[in-house]
Amino acid sequence: MRAGPSQDEIRRQNLGALLRYVHIHGATSRAELTATLGLNRSTIGALTADLAAARLVSEEAPRETGRAGRPSLVVRPESSLVYAYAYSIEVDRLRAARIGLGGEVLDRREAARPRGLLAEETLPLLAGFARQMQQAVPAESVYVGGGVAVSGIVRGEQGPLHVSPRTGWSGEPLGEALATVVGPRRPVLVGNAADVVALAEHARGAGAGYDNVLYLHRDVGIDAGIIVDGRRLTGHGGYGGEVGHMVVRPDGRACGCGSRGCWETEIGEYAMLRLAGRDTAAPGASLALIDAASRGDASAQAAVRHVADWLGFGVANLVNIFNPAVVIFGGTLRDIYLAGAARVRSRLNAMALPAAREQVRLRTPLLGEDAALIGAAELAFEQLLADPLDAG
Amino acid sequence: MRAGPSQDEIRRQNLGALLRYVHIHGATSRAELTATLGLNRSTIGALTADLAAARLVSEEAPRETGRAGRPSLVVRPESSLVYAYAYSIEVDRLRAARIGLGGEVLDRREAARPRGLLAEETLPLLAGFARQMQQAVPAESVYVGGGVAVSGIVRGEQGPLHVSPRTGWSGEPLGEALATVVGPRRPVLVGNAADVVALAEHARGAGAGYDNVLYLHRDVGIDAGIIVDGRRLTGHGGYGGEVGHMVVRPDGRACGCGSRGCWETEIGEYAMLRLAGRDTAAPGASLALIDAASRGDASAQAAVRHVADWLGFGVANLVNIFNPAVVIFGGTLRDIYLAGAARVRSRLNAMALPAAREQVRLRTPLLGEDAALIGAAELAFEQLLADPLDAG
Repeated sequence: MRAGPSQDEIRRQNLGALLRYVHIHGATSRAELTATLGLNRSTIGALTADLAAARLVSEEAPRETGRAGRPSLVVRPESSLVYAYAYSIEVDRLRAARIGLGGEVLDRREAARPRGLLAEETLPLLAGFARQMQQAVPAESVYVGGGVAVSGIVRGEQGPLHVSPRTGWSGEPLGEALATVVGPRRPVLVGNAADVVALAEHARGAGAGYDNVLYLHRDVGIDAGIIVDGRRLTGHGGYGGEVGHMVVRPDGRACGCGSRGCWETEIGEYAMLRLAGRDTAAPGASLALIDAASRGDASAQAAVRHVADWLGFGVANLVNIFNPAVVIFGGTLRDIYLAGAARVRSRLNAMALPAAREQVRLRTPLLGEDAALIGAAELAFEQLLADPLDAG
Repeated sequence: MRAGPSQDEIRRQNLGALLRYVHIHGATSRAELTATLGLNRSTIGALTADLAAARLVSEEAPRETGRAGRPSLVVRPESSLVYAYAYSIEVDRLRAARIGLGGEVLDRREAARPRGLLAEETLPLLAGFARQMQQAVPAESVYVGGGVAVSGIVRGEQGPLHVSPRTGWSGEPLGEALATVVGPRRPVLVGNAADVVALAEHARGAGAGYDNVLYLHRDVGIDAGIIVDGRRLTGHGGYGGEVGHMVVRPDGRACGCGSRGCWETEIGEYAMLRLAGRDTAAPGASLALIDAASRGDASAQAAVRHVADWLGFGVANLVNIFNPAVVIFGGTLRDIYLAGAARVRSRLNAMALPAAREQVRLRTPLLGEDAALIGAAELAFEQLLADPLDAG
């Protein structure tokens, strides 16, 4: 129902489109920007000049092309000067990074996180990381904000953390508290870990170039970051994507959520470890089990087979519902998928409708351990791209 | 990655926004349009003049307000002159209508459809309806195109019908064939019945005002039309929304799709009728069974309870995945929901996460039997609203 944009809005959209292009694709010639963005040369020149004046991009002559004629200038994101802080609160680790425009990790810190660490104990650690990194920030740098990836349910990017069963926190003003540490004029947005990794893998990883992407993540629980038609599925109140609590087995085990037979009770880490008779509290137990399976341990192999089977089961349901172009297996599902791809595919073949099944690519993440940090920074860069010249 | 719009695009967007507003909300004063669309009075005046010149809207003085000052003119959609043809191919009925801008049914035809009727037998019937209705079209009318709602999987709005298991058709150039009947310069777009009813209920029915809406439909099978963040979920290749083939019971009955325990095998009409020992081929058997249950027939009551129970089961999964604001029960699910709302709600309470469950409204459709036709016409009106002055 919105009316068309004003002149100011158009300028903002154009600036954002140009900056987004170099943020995702890196240094790009003016000629390519002109062709890709569908704007004329003089507009591209004016937009670039505005972005360069704000120190968001720089221009340089390209390397010798050998071709005749004046070469097109190259527009480069100021990755070493324009930055966001990214934080990742994981089940047993805390990470922080300073990330430059274009997704480059400029600096990083991390520490083990004892399980059960409270919000009031975690925040000072993250704030300390930010303060340490801040000391190495070059003069003339441009801080654009921050993002936090949290394992658990997150309601509202700007609001307090409403529910986070994995951390046991509730109602913590996490973003606000972190914003005051490094620059209260720029918000620090909070997102579910799977959501922000989906953003990162969609922008510059295994989902790049596709508009319908399903990113599945496992740590203690199962989460999904779902991209529908190019945008994150959040749902009415920000609670969408809870695929781990899709019931796949009505007569299954009781789940922590109060229901029974949730997908998580079949493919979650605890379920897998219990199946193999292993200690669920040992750090790294899940990967150790997959490793044992690869070395021939029978009970470990049986557990991996079970999880791969039920992983394929749930994926088939989601493929029928979403018809995604790509499904990405992240966290410790990556290793399950690599160990049991044939079982996953076999379930998919048995259960998913042919049309949707034939179109889906099964992939592992491309961005590795940095994905959550890169995705968290993306929350901040999204704000910048929406209005690049907003001085904040 | 798109750059901001050109002047022409802005004008199109503004014309579309104004026309969409009166299409959805009916006659609206210029003052209200100015306030709602965020444009100034002279722009609203110019846009209205352009739309009136194209005979898409008219302007009139409002009724006496009793207030002092010059009253604001009222902009009214030309519902009796601007029209689309809508067709609905249902399991046992064929419907067609001429539908005016604003969603008004101006004329209609319908006939029983013997099950198994082939595409080459169905098309002449629909074409005949269109030709009959065409004779009553007033001079000076504006034909904007057509839409077809089909029970079954539809790939590509403009392309041929790729797969349609309910009708047994495959690869029929349905839209193209119908377009040639009444006006080949305007496309006739084809959509899955649940998708187009979702459009209609979202625009002007039980989902109006919400951006995340789940419309569930049952005839022979189970379909969904899913609105995510204000837009239809289609998936990568147009096959999204196949919730009927979400497996809810791994040890369940074999499904026609080749899988086992699909939601459809628990809540589909055939499943319900078989459970009550009734003839699945009798027309109207499903509603007759629900009626019998309401009159105390024990086997009918047991079947309705079973279906309501499993309906709630699947809805709980979808509520966890999508966090919708509204779930609408359509087709013969409407009557199941009305008969078994407490069971549906009870399953939801047991299985859905509290946050998502507390936000969801369970509703029945508001548009009745016309919903598929109104939604099919919406496919054509969407084209008009994208570029109102395109003379075609």
